[in-house]
Amino acid sequence: MGRRDMTVRVGVIGAGIMGADHVRTIQRFVSGASVTMIADVDLDRAKGAAHAAPEAVTTRDWAEVIEGRDVDAVIVASHDTTHAELTLASVAAGKPVMCEKPLAPTGTECERIVQAEDDALAAAPAAPLVSVGFMRRFDPGYREMKAAIDAGVCGVPLMIHCFSRGVRSVPGATTEFSVTNSAVHEFDVVPWLLGQPVVSVSWHAPGVSAVANGQQDPQLMLLHTADGVLTTVESLLNARYGYDIRCEVIGDRGSVALSHGGHIVVDSERTRAHTYPADWRLRFADAYRLELQEWIDAIHEGRAATLASARDGMAAGIVADAVIASMKDGGRTVTVPAGADGAARDDRW
Amino acid sequence: MGRRDMTVRVGVIGAGIMGADHVRTIQRFVSGASVTMIADVDLDRAKGAAHAAPEAVTTRDWAEVIEGRDVDAVIVASHDTTHAELTLASVAAGKPVMCEKPLAPTGTECERIVQAEDDALAAAPAAPLVSVGFMRRFDPGYREMKAAIDAGVCGVPLMIHCFSRGVRSVPGATTEFSVTNSAVHEFDVVPWLLGQPVVSVSWHAPGVSAVANGQQDPQLMLLHTADGVLTTVESLLNARYGYDIRCEVIGDRGSVALSHGGHIVVDSERTRAHTYPADWRLRFADAYRLELQEWIDAIHEGRAATLASARDGMAAGIVADAVIASMKDGGRTVTVPAGADGAARDDRW
Amino acid sequence: MGRRDMTVRVGVIGAGIMGADHVRTIQRFVSGASVTMIADVDLDRAKGAAHAAPEAVTTRDWAEVIEGRDVDAVIVASHDTTHAELTLASVAAGKPVMCEKPLAPTGTECERIVQAEDDALAAAPAAPLVSVGFMRRFDPGYREMKAAIDAGVCGVPLMIHCFSRGVRSVPGATTEFSVTNSAVHEFDVVPWLLGQPVVSVSWHAPGVSAVANGQQDPQLMLLHTADGVLTTVESLLNARYGYDIRCEVIGDRGSVALSHGGHIVVDSERTRAHTYPADWRLRFADAYRLELQEWIDAIHEGRAATLASARDGMAAGIVADAVIASMKDGGRTVTVPAGADGAARDDRW
Amino acid sequence: MGRRDMTVRVGVIGAGIMGADHVRTIQRFVSGASVTMIADVDLDRAKGAAHAAPEAVTTRDWAEVIEGRDVDAVIVASHDTTHAELTLASVAAGKPVMCEKPLAPTGTECERIVQAEDDALAAAPAAPLVSVGFMRRFDPGYREMKAAIDAGVCGVPLMIHCFSRGVRSVPGATTEFSVTNSAVHEFDVVPWLLGQPVVSVSWHAPGVSAVANGQQDPQLMLLHTADGVLTTVESLLNARYGYDIRCEVIGDRGSVALSHGGHIVVDSERTRAHTYPADWRLRFADAYRLELQEWIDAIHEGRAATLASARDGMAAGIVADAVIASMKDGGRTVTVPAGADGAARDDRW
Repeated sequence: MGRRDMTVRVGVIGAGIMGADHVRTIQRFVSGASVTMIADVDLDRAKGAAHAAPEAVTTRDWAEVIEGRDVDAVIVASHDTTHAELTLASVAAGKPVMCEKPLAPTGTECERIVQAEDDALAAAPAAPLVSVGFMRRFDPGYREMKAAIDAGVCGVPLMIHCFSRGVRSVPGATTEFSVTNSAVHEFDVVPWLLGQPVVSVSWHAPGVSAVANGQQDPQLMLLHTADGVLTTVESLLNARYGYDIRCEVIGDRGSVALSHGGHIVVDSERTRAHTYPADWRLRFADAYRLELQEWIDAIHEGRAATLASARDGMAAGIVADAVIASMKDGGRTVTVPAGADGAARDDRW
Repeated sequence: MGRRDMTVRVGVIGAGIMGADHVRTIQRFVSGASVTMIADVDLDRAKGAAHAAPEAVTTRDWAEVIEGRDVDAVIVASHDTTHAELTLASVAAGKPVMCEKPLAPTGTECERIVQAEDDALAAAPAAPLVSVGFMRRFDPGYREMKAAIDAGVCGVPLMIHCFSRGVRSVPGATTEFSVTNSAVHEFDVVPWLLGQPVVSVSWHAPGVSAVANGQQDPQLMLLHTADGVLTTVESLLNARYGYDIRCEVIGDRGSVALSHGGHIVVDSERTRAHTYPADWRLRFADAYRLELQEWIDAIHEGRAATLASARDGMAAGIVADAVIASMKDGGRTVTVPAGADGAARDDRW
Repeated sequence: MGRRDMTVRVGVIGAGIMGADHVRTIQRFVSGASVTMIADVDLDRAKGAAHAAPEAVTTRDWAEVIEGRDVDAVIVASHDTTHAELTLASVAAGKPVMCEKPLAPTGTECERIVQAEDDALAAAPAAPLVSVGFMRRFDPGYREMKAAIDAGVCGVPLMIHCFSRGVRSVPGATTEFSVTNSAVHEFDVVPWLLGQPVVSVSWHAPGVSAVANGQQDPQLMLLHTADGVLTTVESLLNARYGYDIRCEVIGDRGSVALSHGGHIVVDSERTRAHTYPADWRLRFADAYRLELQEWIDAIHEGRAATLASARDGMAAGIVADAVIASMKDGGRTVTVPAGADGAARDDRW
Repeated sequence: MGRRDMTVRVGVIGAGIMGADHVRTIQRFVSGASVTMIADVDLDRAKGAAHAAPEAVTTRDWAEVIEGRDVDAVIVASHDTTHAELTLASVAAGKPVMCEKPLAPTGTECERIVQAEDDALAAAPAAPLVSVGFMRRFDPGYREMKAAIDAGVCGVPLMIHCFSRGVRSVPGATTEFSVTNSAVHEFDVVPWLLGQPVVSVSWHAPGVSAVANGQQDPQLMLLHTADGVLTTVESLLNARYGYDIRCEVIGDRGSVALSHGGHIVVDSERTRAHTYPADWRLRFADAYRLELQEWIDAIHEGRAATLASARDGMAAGIVADAVIASMKDGGRTVTVPAGADGAARDDRW
């Protein structure tokens, strides 16, 4: 049976910015898939997202999606605090689920999901059900970086420098939320780049902040991976000038880094300027598309997707826990407990 | 009927580099389409391309594709000299056809296609059948340039500078072939950027050449468009260092240009380096994907695609004729005959 | 006698922007020289320039400078139309003279200077007296380009692309003046880069102009050098966005180009921006300093300076004549008469 | 008396790489100065440096330089461990002295110099005698950065990121030496950029190193300045790929950073490449020249030079002490004692 003869019917839970974007991407740019249901507690929001998928059924009740007969696979794009419950329900329903990052805000919740998936696969061997939306793994820049590192272009890695800057933090964002929701990307992508788990962390901050509501912004985190590499992570959610993600791996023979990007350059008024995107959807549009395509392809082919696994999601969650522990303890170095090594899953396949 | 309920079945004629790439792109990355037939005079080549579309039927006979009951739309990616015949046959069969550039190597052949399509549409009003694969119109860089020009970022355009460099010309390439097969991209994209037809041209060349087989490389062409803008086109097919397409529009207030691109930057051995792609498929992968997606979407929706039309293809062919006339007449300025204004089609829709 | 025991006393004729800049550069940044006299028809302007050289005598009469007992060497920085007369007077006085570009607006005037210097040197063998202020020969960027070309980095040169853009043309500038005063830089630097004289030229222009006073701006010139290289020169004096000089030499193995420059990069308001200088003095400050230092060093050491010679100045002037002839004859290709090969001087030394 | 009528006669102690470079720079590119004596324990090395100053007297004995009747001012460019003794001797002799960085390897030694200068000026009021060769203060890039920060381009500074990479560390270099000899540049330039002293520091390192001889390389230092800004300093002396100094100041409205530099760009073999200098002399040639010119100008004019003062040198030394204390104490945060605020000197003038 060829892939074109079957279309994966996707149900999307959460029709906020990210959920709506996934609906649109699947409908317009992904081969072999179609969105058939959209749930949001705000039904109007679900209906808004459905403009890109006119035939999709909308509902307020996420359970309808997970149990839906016309739903083969589930995307969880609701609030971070609901991720664990919805992902567990999808696993219980035996449906492939792509949960937006983070898998859950705490390592403990993540562990429950890993356990549930393990149990389900033990009961009925199959491809893993849970994927996590760490889309940077599909960004062409990060992928070229990883290939260059693996090819020895920079020699033995010594340090990594990550800069994660957004224009403005979402209303109500806290210092902790910045860690679990945003810096968590680095907690996933750094181990992925190196093939090494994070073993200890520390948290630091300037005495000044870009915002005045009690949130510390920027933050600086130091990550030590098992191979001895030291990573700096600058997280600045109110950089204002633009959405700007940087990453450099410096080794003992050279360095490899994401380039600035931008398709055009403009000369005007005494400047030569590249434009920054306003948010992550523009910056990572290709990564999201390729991530969803791989997710769908793997479902078609009955194999494990190359997206981040539940274990990967748990690993990042455990690192986030450790960073927050350091934050609350004056920046001392905190050892990351075992389990943060998401690579385990790879051994099974 | 939703688009996912119907899949456009595509037949591809010509399974060389470009045809095989289209097969792969449609199968893997285009929503709502499937390749069902592949024809090539070299059947092994057709079978090779079919690895990306295992269910596609392969044949030596292009007529089988055009007449195929399981073929809704045709891609012509065979040798330039066959484009006119195959496109005309597709029009005769009443099937949408996407012909790789050039529409034909001469303006006269192009005119026959325009006439045939006009006749067909007069007999049975419908969406236009012929699209031409000038994929740069879908490249994000060119699109951002056009948007910036239209937004007045560079003021009134004065000059355009185009540089079209490849690693090595194909065996047997001649000076004329470089014009009709490669520089023809600029003959399309410049009028598209400006919304203005080319009205006169001249051809120039250095006294030295990058190749020694009688082919002149590089060549320099000057294009005057109806708005008075002067465009320089450097065509160098044996640049060796990489595949490198540049374009800058300079106006009376500023300039807008394609940026260098490249996802990563490598520091090693005393240099800071971006990498050039080896050929056009990597450079324009996104453009090809978006072009094909739009072609498929338009077929689904029964509307004119925003790809270059037959008239656009004819316009570029007429300019190529004029450039070759200048080449053969010592570089004198040659007036481009009426008909080179592909914009006409837009008026009908 | 060490150079520090003797100071070259310099007289500067013309205290406009360029003359005043030379006074300041010599006083503040050149080793072994001092400005002792400044002449300008506008005495206040001379006095203004003397702020940087408080002990310099000011005068309205240029003859006082050339004949001055406290003047060892002369800089001619007055209006282009006076260059020939003042340079000839300096030669007659037997004093080294650094004449700002152009040596003279016409080739004929330049020839008289070459002849006068030849006669003077025949009568009393010595180091050449006349240098021409083509400062780009001392710009670190152009020097690195020349070294790279000579080292074979780009293989055999095929084409050169020059872009010469200013913010706004001086009041009263004409189309011809742009050629003799501005594009003349390219007429010198291209032969210098290649070690080859210009043998034929043609002049082209868009149908639109950045200015409306009868001046054509931009202009495009094609130069063929004796080695067969084809050079394009875009001259746009009213680019507004900034002072921007570009040059690329493309050969059969690679390309070498001036980089953008700029010491810092600013991220703000959705852009990543480098700044353009407002005029040439900032862009070429180092070139002017190094040029003047070499001029002074050569005087100290009694040797030929490595600045452009009178013959080089004449060569550029003859090319300018040819470009203007093409301009007045519909853009036809004009052969550059013999004499445009400034390299002759090198053979004598 | 005009500056040209008087030449500052400079004696240089230490004819290693840096001392020889200063001799050459003063002789060839600085206005108003001449090298008259050169001392080195290795007389051949002194004679080698004297090739650029043929009239300079050479000696093994530094005391001859400091006491020399033909020496108006002294440059100390000998081994770091001798800086304090030689600078103190110069102060005792009442001669202006420009001591290469660091002023001394320890804060305690630096304090003795500050005290000696204070005593000397109290006894005989005059312009300060001691300047420290923190040349980055004269680098056009750092100067533009400082001007941009002061102009509010990036808003309120939040963090600074410094990267200091060399090709290969000198033989025998230790982890501590990297701090006192190399990272000390950042300990000076960061407070200078912000106008704020460093108040606490911590030292970190990866578990891997670019070198195997017991030296830790790279190192990471965190600096907190009094204004709350957090600075990261990556010091990697064996980066191999090139000499590469980066600095970015990120504020609450934008960012300003040193740009990559490089005069030319080369396209060849699939890459677009800028070249890195092999060492600091090429990177900072302009900074050294401008620093020395300012030092000479200030001596001519009997005023305080704008070079780093003895207090600035002491401030950097005290920070280095604190960093080493953190290094030896497991990376804990160390408070920098009072006195690290070099700005005090400014208050006196």
